[in-house]
Amino acid sequence: MLEELKEKVLQANLDLVKHKLVLFTWGNVSAIDRASGLIVIKPSGVEYDGMKASDMVVVDLSGKVVEGDLRPSSDTPTHIEFYKAFPDVGGVTHTHSTFATAWAQAGRAIPFYGTTHADYFYGDIPCARSLTKEEIEGEYEKNTGLAIIEKFRSCSLKPLEVPGVLIKSHGVFAFGKDADNSVYNATVIEEVAKMAFLTEQINPHAERADQFMMEKHYQRKHGKNAYYGQKK
Amino acid sequence: MLEELKEKVLQANLDLVKHKLVLFTWGNVSAIDRASGLIVIKPSGVEYDGMKASDMVVVDLSGKVVEGDLRPSSDTPTHIEFYKAFPDVGGVTHTHSTFATAWAQAGRAIPFYGTTHADYFYGDIPCARSLTKEEIEGEYEKNTGLAIIEKFRSCSLKPLEVPGVLIKSHGVFAFGKDADNSVYNATVIEEVAKMAFLTEQINPHAERADQFMMEKHYQRKHGKNAYYGQKK
Amino acid sequence: MLEELKEKVLQANLDLVKHKLVLFTWGNVSAIDRASGLIVIKPSGVEYDGMKASDMVVVDLSGKVVEGDLRPSSDTPTHIEFYKAFPDVGGVTHTHSTFATAWAQAGRAIPFYGTTHADYFYGDIPCARSLTKEEIEGEYEKNTGLAIIEKFRSCSLKPLEVPGVLIKSHGVFAFGKDADNSVYNATVIEEVAKMAFLTEQINPHAERADQFMMEKHYQRKHGKNAYYGQKK
Amino acid sequence: MLEELKEKVLQANLDLVKHKLVLFTWGNVSAIDRASGLIVIKPSGVEYDGMKASDMVVVDLSGKVVEGDLRPSSDTPTHIEFYKAFPDVGGVTHTHSTFATAWAQAGRAIPFYGTTHADYFYGDIPCARSLTKEEIEGEYEKNTGLAIIEKFRSCSLKPLEVPGVLIKSHGVFAFGKDADNSVYNATVIEEVAKMAFLTEQINPHAERADQFMMEKHYQRKHGKNAYYGQKK
Repeated sequence: MLEELKEKVLQANLDLVKHKLVLFTWGNVSAIDRASGLIVIKPSGVEYDGMKASDMVVVDLSGKVVEGDLRPSSDTPTHIEFYKAFPDVGGVTHTHSTFATAWAQAGRAIPFYGTTHADYFYGDIPCARSLTKEEIEGEYEKNTGLAIIEKFRSCSLKPLEVPGVLIKSHGVFAFGKDADNSVYNATVIEEVAKMAFLTEQINPHAERADQFMMEKHYQRKHGKNAYYGQKK
Repeated sequence: MLEELKEKVLQANLDLVKHKLVLFTWGNVSAIDRASGLIVIKPSGVEYDGMKASDMVVVDLSGKVVEGDLRPSSDTPTHIEFYKAFPDVGGVTHTHSTFATAWAQAGRAIPFYGTTHADYFYGDIPCARSLTKEEIEGEYEKNTGLAIIEKFRSCSLKPLEVPGVLIKSHGVFAFGKDADNSVYNATVIEEVAKMAFLTEQINPHAERADQFMMEKHYQRKHGKNAYYGQKK
Repeated sequence: MLEELKEKVLQANLDLVKHKLVLFTWGNVSAIDRASGLIVIKPSGVEYDGMKASDMVVVDLSGKVVEGDLRPSSDTPTHIEFYKAFPDVGGVTHTHSTFATAWAQAGRAIPFYGTTHADYFYGDIPCARSLTKEEIEGEYEKNTGLAIIEKFRSCSLKPLEVPGVLIKSHGVFAFGKDADNSVYNATVIEEVAKMAFLTEQINPHAERADQFMMEKHYQRKHGKNAYYGQKK
Repeated sequence: MLEELKEKVLQANLDLVKHKLVLFTWGNVSAIDRASGLIVIKPSGVEYDGMKASDMVVVDLSGKVVEGDLRPSSDTPTHIEFYKAFPDVGGVTHTHSTFATAWAQAGRAIPFYGTTHADYFYGDIPCARSLTKEEIEGEYEKNTGLAIIEKFRSCSLKPLEVPGVLIKSHGVFAFGKDADNSVYNATVIEEVAKMAFLTEQINPHAERADQFMMEKHYQRKHGKNAYYGQKK
């Protein structure tokens, strides 16, 4: 079942290690097959080294395991909320990558300080509020997803235009059109988080770059007249 | 004697290098065999590269070498105090890992800023006081252990719930149910120390995460109804 | 056409990875053949891993592709302006290397704090102004080059004496007598940017080193009586 | 001539790369054969990769090349002053390692903040003054050595007890009983420099550790009753 997608989700999970986004088992990637409404996700607490495509777990949008011998990631309910709320999202990555998590712990959005940021994120990388006691003691992982969706809706953000988010006192979720693309965006967030930290250390009065620069850089890569890269 | 344990302690010492926790010979790991009351520990000042299981030294709880051609780690008396005071500790790691040692030199506990921390530590990672002149000029390494035990007792901390500690102007000790687990916890301390440093740089007014979030994250991994990872 | 130069430009682009100056496809190197007035440059958005000399694109000084199946780097018009304005420049490197980009985002020149800097840069590494709305919405990449040239001219800087520059809210351009030399200088900029950041953290009142020290270090490597290195 | 020493000096120079203390050719190691009064040193500006023992240059204490086809390091006159002033020094290392150089650029000694420092340095790692215009325009490299020796003498420091020093706006020199030991000490300086930087960031009011702790740690490794490591 979904063998090709399992292979891609496996590879995307292994890329977390390659891009130095995870320590031990601290991250997971999933992807959805929109035709069947089934999600393929990393098993919970399993090390990347030696992990096989057949270890990937298939769940449906209600969270029920449809195939797989292992438990799915404990963060599965968060991923599911994203797939339900954001029809254009095809892959989701969760990490505790160092610099991005520090911004999350600091409770701050990552400001748009330059073109590296604008090449992938149309505006600040937002930071969702921390959860209430009731939300944490209830369906915690599901509520994590809902708090992030609330942030996107209240700020009118689109997940493929701002393909990542911090959640206060926790870590990072990145979105993508597929699993691989979500890992790519998680990698960009970590680098942009490091640059923004350094920017403020070097100049405590640093200001966001101009809106028209963001427009230009985002559009030259992602707009309908994009001219970065090769013709597809 | 204790050949299997020697192999595990060797491997745990080599993992210090793998996880980038040590420069030169600046760290050591031990484990105890509770049945016999014997401790296996790294030899003093020996490089990790080329070290063999047969180089591990066996000492008893009085510090007497029971087997081994090499001198045990100079920190052996510290390890012994932990095994005597904490019956559930099976492994101990000592390092001078960079970020954690900086917190120790700064004389500060590492504040609980997020879920990465709470997944392993039930509360701040404490910093034991520096030793007095008399303690340092007397049985220094033993007194290092006693100062740490004093800290745990005065704060009612349990070493497997808060499996690590800094000691002022010195470095890090991490606890575990076995040697491997103590190295794992030492690795987490270093990462959490780096994140906490960055958190305060990014937001000098950062506050600890909520107590109920700590409760949730710690329990979902370590509580009796833990649901992270695979069934054992 | 220009097979030898393509090989050198390929190698210089691969050295961006070796020197850890790029993530994904975030950098490009070009070189000019002054005899023919033709420029060899990396193709746009192509990954370094697996890139071949035959993938390099040949363009003329008007930007027209003379040879190559792929689109040239989107930054090609910036490179062209440099080759037109600076007759002694033979190679150009563009990166978003982390520390240097942070200085660019902070909008600050990198101050001359020591001999590491003076060995390669005769004075501060300048930071060109950010572009206006009109410049960005017009011929953006060309205008990026013009803003940098404006900076060099207004400050009477020579590109082989100060072989690199930041541009506000963006990144780094480095110059060289050839492609390889421009990558070398881009690598020096990143290291000097890191050292300067740390210098100010360690001493917020740090001052520039003495002018006569700059003179000495620059001249012993690059002056007519240079005595560093081997006789050529 | 001095084939064995050349091999050791080569290896020590290659260890600069292994311990990440150098970029490009930015460091050099020498050793002296006290019997003959001859010094073996790295050639100037030669890359470590591919360097051979036969590339090492032999000079006498007047700086005359006694053997070797290549020019000796441009820093040779600095090394020579150390060998003349400090009879117990057998090896000298010069680097621009990142964190230590930042302290040098900041013009500050590295304060003794903990046992990692005290295990190798009996007190702060000093920072020698910057040179005057006359000193720089005259015999610059020789005067660099003299300014450092002046610092050691005025502070009554012994080079094997404080086996390293910064020089303002420049970089690091480390001493050792032989070439290998001087590289070891240069590696310790870089790590201690990083820790001290972080310590002050984490606690701007951090204070030096106690003098009696320094005494204890230094003596347990280097005193006549040293008990760290194995019996020799």
